[in-house]
Amino acid sequence: MQQLKFERIPRATISRLAVYVQELEVMEQQGIKVISSEKLAQLCGVNPSQIRKDLAYFGEFGVRGVGYYVHELREAIRQSLGLDRTWNVVLVGVGNLGRALLRHNLLRKRGFVIVAAFDCDPFKIGEEIAGLEVNCTSKLPKSTRDMNVEIGVITTPPERAQRAANYLMEGGIKGIVNFAPSRITTPENISVEYVDFIHHMFSVAFNITQNQSKGLL
Amino acid sequence: MQQLKFERIPRATISRLAVYVQELEVMEQQGIKVISSEKLAQLCGVNPSQIRKDLAYFGEFGVRGVGYYVHELREAIRQSLGLDRTWNVVLVGVGNLGRALLRHNLLRKRGFVIVAAFDCDPFKIGEEIAGLEVNCTSKLPKSTRDMNVEIGVITTPPERAQRAANYLMEGGIKGIVNFAPSRITTPENISVEYVDFIHHMFSVAFNITQNQSKGLL
Repeated sequence: MQQLKFERIPRATISRLAVYVQELEVMEQQGIKVISSEKLAQLCGVNPSQIRKDLAYFGEFGVRGVGYYVHELREAIRQSLGLDRTWNVVLVGVGNLGRALLRHNLLRKRGFVIVAAFDCDPFKIGEEIAGLEVNCTSKLPKSTRDMNVEIGVITTPPERAQRAANYLMEGGIKGIVNFAPSRITTPENISVEYVDFIHHMFSVAFNITQNQSKGLL
Repeated sequence: MQQLKFERIPRATISRLAVYVQELEVMEQQGIKVISSEKLAQLCGVNPSQIRKDLAYFGEFGVRGVGYYVHELREAIRQSLGLDRTWNVVLVGVGNLGRALLRHNLLRKRGFVIVAAFDCDPFKIGEEIAGLEVNCTSKLPKSTRDMNVEIGVITTPPERAQRAANYLMEGGIKGIVNFAPSRITTPENISVEYVDFIHHMFSVAFNITQNQSKGLL
């Protein structure tokens, strides 16, 4: 991996890099070879100086008067983010959201391969979803170690999220993406991300309320 | 609504307020009446001064030597966020994720009521999911106006997200939560939130890669 110029990359930068990769990928599919920083910024919904600042963490990109080479930039960001490889993932909690993720083709396309699914509900154990058999959660620690899994996805109800996290850590997982609407406690070397779409609903509700009170709507 | 002390509340604050509301709700269910700022901070995964700063946007909270009154604080945040009412929501794109959201009970519990679901796939139109009949997307603008809908949720494939957004805006929607992994263009008075779980997968992958290169794993 490329040596990073700074140790600490802001979370917001990582998030924007993910958007850049996505948009660069679409461009590559469309056969676009070079893009101006203005155009890339516009497509990603940020300003050009933000892109330059974000990319500066990873090295020198862009050619004055030309812009960015689409393929090179995409590869460089992918490498920086650790996306130039595949990641084995397990999922805990086979409810509506868990099923949707198991059937989602974008995860695999982005290098995240769900290799096992777990649930503690006896009615779900043994069921096959998207080619995977649901296993009893008690088997999780051994399975994840055997399959060299690094990332765990939690889609349990909120009250079971911590237990799921404990199983995952027992299984040697290094990072967790928690879709359950509750906080979990982990040691510092475990990377945890929360995906809580209700927060985004809240934000929109808040912004509409604000816009209405300002007479903008 | 309470008068806000500042016009512009940082996004990160809104996001944390959503966490505070969630945790306060759990406490209220457990019969907890008062909580210290340290304990609340710990449960929410932030530090106490952050909570004080976030709440300062909305008024004076907390009693020295006592902490926060759980019910009062929860109500005040709910009111500030515009959550002391229900919001009519429509969903566009009845794929795996759309189905999961239609069946998700948390949305309604939080005041977001999905009143209609749309898809352009003739095989899906007429299907009933969670008590709602899937309608043809061309009917969306009239339906949303008739039902006084303010928020639209997009769960289409990425290439159809902009079209879905156009239909929603034609229907007079004021805010959009976009789950499709592509940017959409809207006028400034439309509030747009992106829910892209792939970004969170990216962040975890990046952090694991970083931790490994630092020898922490």
